[in-house]
Amino acid sequence: MIKPVCLVIGAGAGIGGTVGKKFAAEGYHSVLCRRSDEEGLQKLVAEIQAEGGEATGYLLNAVDEGTLEERIAAVEAEIGPIQVVLFNLGAQIGNRSLEDTPLKTFELGWRMATLALFRVAKEVIPHMEQRGGGTILVTSATAAVRGNAGQHSHAAAMGGRRMLCQSLNAEYAARNIHVAHILVDGAVDAPDTLGKMVGAEAFQKLRETRGAEDGLLLPEHMAETYYHVAHQHRSSWTHELDLRSYSDLAWWNHR
Amino acid sequence: MIKPVCLVIGAGAGIGGTVGKKFAAEGYHSVLCRRSDEEGLQKLVAEIQAEGGEATGYLLNAVDEGTLEERIAAVEAEIGPIQVVLFNLGAQIGNRSLEDTPLKTFELGWRMATLALFRVAKEVIPHMEQRGGGTILVTSATAAVRGNAGQHSHAAAMGGRRMLCQSLNAEYAARNIHVAHILVDGAVDAPDTLGKMVGAEAFQKLRETRGAEDGLLLPEHMAETYYHVAHQHRSSWTHELDLRSYSDLAWWNHR
Amino acid sequence: MIKPVCLVIGAGAGIGGTVGKKFAAEGYHSVLCRRSDEEGLQKLVAEIQAEGGEATGYLLNAVDEGTLEERIAAVEAEIGPIQVVLFNLGAQIGNRSLEDTPLKTFELGWRMATLALFRVAKEVIPHMEQRGGGTILVTSATAAVRGNAGQHSHAAAMGGRRMLCQSLNAEYAARNIHVAHILVDGAVDAPDTLGKMVGAEAFQKLRETRGAEDGLLLPEHMAETYYHVAHQHRSSWTHELDLRSYSDLAWWNHR
Amino acid sequence: MIKPVCLVIGAGAGIGGTVGKKFAAEGYHSVLCRRSDEEGLQKLVAEIQAEGGEATGYLLNAVDEGTLEERIAAVEAEIGPIQVVLFNLGAQIGNRSLEDTPLKTFELGWRMATLALFRVAKEVIPHMEQRGGGTILVTSATAAVRGNAGQHSHAAAMGGRRMLCQSLNAEYAARNIHVAHILVDGAVDAPDTLGKMVGAEAFQKLRETRGAEDGLLLPEHMAETYYHVAHQHRSSWTHELDLRSYSDLAWWNHR
Repeated sequence: MIKPVCLVIGAGAGIGGTVGKKFAAEGYHSVLCRRSDEEGLQKLVAEIQAEGGEATGYLLNAVDEGTLEERIAAVEAEIGPIQVVLFNLGAQIGNRSLEDTPLKTFELGWRMATLALFRVAKEVIPHMEQRGGGTILVTSATAAVRGNAGQHSHAAAMGGRRMLCQSLNAEYAARNIHVAHILVDGAVDAPDTLGKMVGAEAFQKLRETRGAEDGLLLPEHMAETYYHVAHQHRSSWTHELDLRSYSDLAWWNHR
Repeated sequence: MIKPVCLVIGAGAGIGGTVGKKFAAEGYHSVLCRRSDEEGLQKLVAEIQAEGGEATGYLLNAVDEGTLEERIAAVEAEIGPIQVVLFNLGAQIGNRSLEDTPLKTFELGWRMATLALFRVAKEVIPHMEQRGGGTILVTSATAAVRGNAGQHSHAAAMGGRRMLCQSLNAEYAARNIHVAHILVDGAVDAPDTLGKMVGAEAFQKLRETRGAEDGLLLPEHMAETYYHVAHQHRSSWTHELDLRSYSDLAWWNHR
Repeated sequence: MIKPVCLVIGAGAGIGGTVGKKFAAEGYHSVLCRRSDEEGLQKLVAEIQAEGGEATGYLLNAVDEGTLEERIAAVEAEIGPIQVVLFNLGAQIGNRSLEDTPLKTFELGWRMATLALFRVAKEVIPHMEQRGGGTILVTSATAAVRGNAGQHSHAAAMGGRRMLCQSLNAEYAARNIHVAHILVDGAVDAPDTLGKMVGAEAFQKLRETRGAEDGLLLPEHMAETYYHVAHQHRSSWTHELDLRSYSDLAWWNHR
Repeated sequence: MIKPVCLVIGAGAGIGGTVGKKFAAEGYHSVLCRRSDEEGLQKLVAEIQAEGGEATGYLLNAVDEGTLEERIAAVEAEIGPIQVVLFNLGAQIGNRSLEDTPLKTFELGWRMATLALFRVAKEVIPHMEQRGGGTILVTSATAAVRGNAGQHSHAAAMGGRRMLCQSLNAEYAARNIHVAHILVDGAVDAPDTLGKMVGAEAFQKLRETRGAEDGLLLPEHMAETYYHVAHQHRSSWTHELDLRSYSDLAWWNHR
């Protein structure tokens, strides 16, 4: 029997890969796409298969022309119907002052965080609509709701992404397409993104500082909520929600 | 063995009673409080018990002095530890122009929608904190995020309520108290609130207009999300979320 | 000739008194109301009169029954038509934990910040409407848009106030009543409120720290914007705006 | 004596040209840039000069590489110091369903509404900073704060623009650069944009429907507020404000 597909765009060892595992464990075929690290990707796929789940992995550069479109078409043709998309691409480039943000960098942020979602939506929604529905989960960040120094590229891209999610819901909810904007308000315990960005030592310190072992957002628990939102009854959909560790403060509060 | 208690303030046949049933089915003792209709209340209790669950019902006027405080103290002393509160009191009085909104009405709205939550928080949080944590789920409405003609009382009361929820989280999240503001964006299929407000015929028409049988928000499905939020791991809490039917538009969009 | 009246509720030496002076200098009769300090009040009145302006001062406790209503009726009967109201009552009580916030304190915050505005609106709008229009300027704070630890009373009251402003606009804009919610995002150089709250020494230090002599919000410059908003053409009204010093950060940004 | 320059990007007969006239009347040299209609442009310039003001006009395609940068450099070198920029480019393309929005259209919206502002900021801010300060006024729309069906391109671009404005303020306010995001909430009485979009007859009808002669936002009155915001004292800057006709409803309210 062909399983429904959960397509993950941005499947690292943090949110993306972990949500992919969760959906595979619940009966989906998880298609995991990431830009680089074939070894890490195959490790994820193997872990899912070792637990009896189905998964396939692809390296894919989301900003290259046609890549997302071709992957979606191929998955639909060769693997199964994409019932859920997790759009999990970030566009965080650290703090970059205005003068240290070239036009190309600003554009790249938009291509990853905004345009790539638009491309995915354009390609996958017709398939979903034809089958009577589908779900697009979008990982987002506080940059989607407030600007900050050094965040010119990131905030502009994420703010655009959020408005796009709202527009997609306004147009497609009544046709059974559910788009959820999940605002991750805090640091995620993701060794290969945050960990690399801050360095191993600082990362471990951060883990320890933020209250015992669960002060950072833990992907395996975030995945529970991603899964829940994707399976809400259509009479009661959530379109915007936040996720934050108990030990952290909301983005607008200060220590 | 003493079950944990889910205390519902505002337990009608819509969200309140249905969430109470869900928690009882999952192993809680549901304590259902409502202002009137002893018969309806006992029917709810009986339904829960018939399914093998535990429930107790009380009539209680939330705006009267001491009522909420005494009920909480008594439940803690006589039934069990309140692990979850569902604060489900509305303050909708229909559209009332400024001149048709007496001071007493404006005050009553605040006493029900804002002060009552403050009183519940003050009374229940010390118990929760002593035990290491707890959850307060707060049903809210679009009036919490935007004013409207005829909504002077309702919007002021709900806007205050939302800011109170944020303040409670800012102060208590790190002490393991989780407050969730659940913005219900649309009409709920609740015969004894919405049904009574618009009349039986109009209510049935509304049900039919809004897309087959699930165009209104269905409490049994909303309850799934209430339950999920109350059981999120503390590394990944949701503090604000919306619920809206697929067939409806967001509060800011127009037909 | 009878001058139009600018009625200031909350006329201390900061925003309230300074806006009163500005309107008097522009041809209004400023009616200044404050709770206490008859001497400070008469000093303000004398300063306005010394510059050739018209002003009258009253002590008035805004939370007492009937006070606002009687003052508005008397001003309309004895001084002139109230064309502009500046509602400038704060409800800041410093940081108070939940347990250190008695019900009476929580209620008092609401009576000052929310109910008093509702009472003013109910009393003054019929006069304005009969004359074809009027303006209500409302000083507000960041607590109106986000909660915080220790701000249970303040945030709930200000959040309610903002929703009330939006409701009033929704109902009365088309009848030429303009309500403007002015979010003051930062510390105001107001010796008799902020100055008293933090103490003379800390206040002077704050003044010096925040960039030369204009790091705090300076009331005489804020008054320019208050006056501008009150005199916008009705085709182009502003309903919500912020005011913040160049040297400060937005409430959502952190140092 | 060299006058300070007010550079208008998007100087049609509506907001852009009218604000340009206002600043010229107040002593600025207005540099008016628009994409097409040399005749209309020279008419604007001539009108300003006929009133004794200074103005220069340029045709300029803001999405072409280098155009904005070269124009800013040339103005600084040949005309005078750019003290104020009015960034007035829209990206409204009418309602376009997702399938009727090609990637190129989506990208064009972003190039006009988001990237062009980023390019202007990168080029003009170093000049401003060197001189000790400057102002960037940004005309914006409701699409910056909420998505809608058919607004995929527009909302994503404007949402990104707003977050960019906030980021610029966070980075540059303390260096005396003031960025104001002016949310125009309603139809503007602009014959050559709205008028062309809806057609002459519908436009006249709209004018008449929305309450006498001032139901649409009138650019000459909007210009008063643009000018005011650009001349606020730095102790009391406004960063976000709305403009809406008295006869209209807020974007979140429905008729």
